[in-house]
This record gives sequence, C-alpha cells and structure tokens, in this order.
Amino acid sequence: MRRALDLARRAAAIGEVPVGAVVYETESGRILAEAFNLRERDADPSAHAEFLAIREACRVIGDWRLNHCSLAVTLEPCPMCAGLIVNARVGRVIYGANDPKAGAVRTLYTLLEDDRLNHACEVRAGLLAEESAALLRAFFRDLRG
Amino acid sequence: MRRALDLARRAAAIGEVPVGAVVYETESGRILAEAFNLRERDADPSAHAEFLAIREACRVIGDWRLNHCSLAVTLEPCPMCAGLIVNARVGRVIYGANDPKAGAVRTLYTLLEDDRLNHACEVRAGLLAEESAALLRAFFRDLRG
Repeated sequence: MRRALDLARRAAAIGEVPVGAVVYETESGRILAEAFNLRERDADPSAHAEFLAIREACRVIGDWRLNHCSLAVTLEPCPMCAGLIVNARVGRVIYGANDPKAGAVRTLYTLLEDDRLNHACEVRAGLLAEESAALLRAFFRDLRG
Repeated sequence: MRRALDLARRAAAIGEVPVGAVVYETESGRILAEAFNLRERDADPSAHAEFLAIREACRVIGDWRLNHCSLAVTLEPCPMCAGLIVNARVGRVIYGANDPKAGAVRTLYTLLEDDRLNHACEVRAGLLAEESAALLRAFFRDLRG
C-alpha cells in the first residue's frame, strides 16, 4: 500500500487525480503491475489506477483470471472498477480511503460481496486511509485555488 | 441495434460470447465505434463489447465525455460496463436482452439511474431482446455440446 501511495503522488505530479494501485501475487508478494490514474492524459474514462493495474496484470500472465492475486489501491473502487474486480476474479482487495461519491465496495454499493454475482472477494478497507485521503484533499484544494 | 446484432454474430463465429455494441452520436446518428466481445482472444477481463466500443469512441473524439452519444448493445451491461457508462457520461443506452446473472441496468442493479452517482443516463431496454437472447442461448448450447 505504501507503493500504491507513491504511485498516487506521481499522478498528482502530472495533474491527475492522485490514486495509485498495485496488483501482486498473494502468496509470493511478486508485483505483476502497478499504475496510477491517467484519465485526463489518455482521454480514457476507464483509466483509473486499479483498472489499468488489473488489465496490465492480466496481460503479464496472459489470462483474465486473477484469483491468486491481490489488489492494493489507495481509494475505494467505483462501480466500474469493482465490476472489473469481479469479472477478473481478483482474490483480495485492500483499499485506503472510502469514496463517499462513488465507492462501490462499502460506501454506496457492496459489489465485491454480492452472492448473486459469480465471484466474491476478500476485502480489507481503511489501510493507510488517512494518508490516501489527505493526498486527494490536497489535490482538489490546489485545483480550486 | 441491427448492427450490434451483426457484431454479436461475428463474436460467436470466433468463439467469443456473442454480444455486440455500437456507439453513435445521438443527433446525427454518425457511428463513432463498434465492437464485439473479445475477452478470450485478448485475455482481457474488460474486453466486453460495450466497453471496447466506448473506449474506442473516446479515442476517436479525443475526450472521455460522451454526453452527446448513444450506446446500443445486445445484452444488458454488467456492473463494470454500467460503471464505465456513468464515468464516460454516455447520454443514452439502448440494450437488448436482460442479463439475469450480472445485469446492472435493470436486473440486479440500476446503476444508470442512481441519483447519488454523478451522471444519470436515459435507458431503453428490450430492443430486439429476443434475437439477442437467442444468439446467446445458441452459443452456450453449442459450447456444452
């Protein structure tokens, strides 16, 4: 999660909303992919940090299934990213700050713990939440001011 | 939607789940992008038809906002795709068959009509639903044997 925070800082440095994400193999800890938000640079509405990291991890292993992997991301995933986590069968998700506007893991929806969908995921919320949220607050304050 | 159905048939022909999608400018009807499901070929869990079409449309216009566009897709979008529709501010969504397993527009969730999220979308469900569903049934029947 420290690494995800470093990635979030790199996003802020280029004017992107500071969110960072890492995908690693749960048992070995080997990192498969890391990314930060690139929506503005790429004009791509799907270029959220965790979305890019998951797609890259799939590319690296040549499979769309990540049951044996964990995702660490500094902000609670939105419905799109939570949906991808389900579709990619990510085994475990660890996230930092809750997202009151779009959080789809605990805040507005609980998409990762819905028995009707074909995958359920282990969730750990609130890791380095304060640091993750502080980065976002500082970014939006600077943007306004 | 006829065009989306043709695209879905092309997916089936290469062994992909038959779903097709088209993104067009709502007023002019000009098509910006079309796609079909490519999850297996690309080993990419995000390669759903409507997901690929929306990303391609953004690439074509160089913007991640599609308020002036419509999406036609043969199957009800899943949470990931519905989340992208919200994130990309797609103005209107027309879909064919309901998806009892993962539908996030009307069946399991109503993500496109949630006032808490920062975009609401016009929805029209059930267009060419029977043809769309028949394609999927035939595909899964052949797969089983």
